[in-house]
Amino acid sequence: MLTFIGLGLYDEQSITIAGHDALQDVDRVFAEFYTSKLAGTTVEELEDYHHVDIEVCSRADVEQDPEPILDAAAEGDAAFLTAGDTMISTTHVDLRLRAEERGIETEIVHGTTAQTAASSLTGLQNYRFGKATTLPFERAHGGDGVPQSVLDTIDDNRERGLHTLVFLDIKADDPHWPDDADEIYMTGDHAAELLAAERPDMLGVVVGQAGSPSPTVVADRMADLATGEYGDPLHMLVVPGELHHMEQDALRSLGGAPENSL
Amino acid sequence: MLTFIGLGLYDEQSITIAGHDALQDVDRVFAEFYTSKLAGTTVEELEDYHHVDIEVCSRADVEQDPEPILDAAAEGDAAFLTAGDTMISTTHVDLRLRAEERGIETEIVHGTTAQTAASSLTGLQNYRFGKATTLPFERAHGGDGVPQSVLDTIDDNRERGLHTLVFLDIKADDPHWPDDADEIYMTGDHAAELLAAERPDMLGVVVGQAGSPSPTVVADRMADLATGEYGDPLHMLVVPGELHHMEQDALRSLGGAPENSL
Repeated sequence: MLTFIGLGLYDEQSITIAGHDALQDVDRVFAEFYTSKLAGTTVEELEDYHHVDIEVCSRADVEQDPEPILDAAAEGDAAFLTAGDTMISTTHVDLRLRAEERGIETEIVHGTTAQTAASSLTGLQNYRFGKATTLPFERAHGGDGVPQSVLDTIDDNRERGLHTLVFLDIKADDPHWPDDADEIYMTGDHAAELLAAERPDMLGVVVGQAGSPSPTVVADRMADLATGEYGDPLHMLVVPGELHHMEQDALRSLGGAPENSL
Repeated sequence: MLTFIGLGLYDEQSITIAGHDALQDVDRVFAEFYTSKLAGTTVEELEDYHHVDIEVCSRADVEQDPEPILDAAAEGDAAFLTAGDTMISTTHVDLRLRAEERGIETEIVHGTTAQTAASSLTGLQNYRFGKATTLPFERAHGGDGVPQSVLDTIDDNRERGLHTLVFLDIKADDPHWPDDADEIYMTGDHAAELLAAERPDMLGVVVGQAGSPSPTVVADRMADLATGEYGDPLHMLVVPGELHHMEQDALRSLGGAPENSL
């Protein structure tokens, strides 16, 4: 049996009780933190809090050589942990399908996600979000500025009045990412600076430390967001589409949006 | 202080540990179950498990006369519980903004959501979902079949290759909903039957009992989904757009999709 468990957004208490309980029943616990991470805790704290030993897998362990994980799940009960929800990346779906192919039963214990938080913390309605996108570091896509595909997604959503959640690049455990890079987790000001070069007056909302007791929510024009600081990672960026009356009120009240930005 | 806490998807253990802990610190606990509900538990079981007394609010309590909730949050610490994540409905954003206006501090403890589950359980990638929509009961929109706006959302997403999450109507605590109605929670077969009248060959995925230990996932043509049964509520329906290779594999392996449906 292989149980995929989402750790949720922030620290060792962001997991559901069902997830915590499921961890007590397994023989081995694997985890990966390269697609995302929990900013408010460490592997050691997770181990102490949940009374388990966690075997942290590299990208290569999961994507190229997942047999040890599958063997553990075939011989006994294993759990596979990810930040946020489980199955957030094709890598996890692939692992699940490999398990099913080997006749290993799989189960999912959901976790809270950045998409959930993007909507809840900003007051922007979840059913008014269009397709999400990811903004990569400039050197990661070998170009300057913002890839056209990211702008297209934002523009396409805005034309339909829809909000866009922009995930910001994460370069943890990436063999192609230089050790001396300034950033591993793209910040909200960096993202806003990139977008401001194309759309300086466009409204944006930076969300930082989602899932923590004191998250950051700042709504302003991209050019102004580019000069701000938003605390510890992880950050994300929301580009609102058409705003309903109550969504405007929410961005004013919860995100401090200046009138000229709305 | 008013803490909004998402109860997650299914039962008393679907809440995060952070949410459970926050409940221990408050003086009064309010909840509403008309926008959604936890299919795997009762209010009494929630009270026992979390050692709290829960005051269940009707739609009118929250939308027309929220003062008692706000008074409790002004005088002490109050929690407001919803199934899924908190802030899933404008009703909750409105309550939060009223609290902020009165100078009451607010905090959010996230819960897992149907959107999360729709992606995780089906293997369809979360960043390939477009705008979501809600399919209403026929008599709720005073017409036959599927409202044009629902079809437009699905078609618009499919043109872009995007998946659509279709929330199914919930008519709990609705004064305009007749007591003798057959259904309060629309089922997946009912939804598929409505959509099959317009698009019989369109691929759909019914997801039932999301967040439970044994969720239902069935992928097939709408006309075939319309003849199925999917167990206890709540149900939802996903209409896939373009399928990547691994998403096809997932629908075959996890949803039993017949080849002629893909």
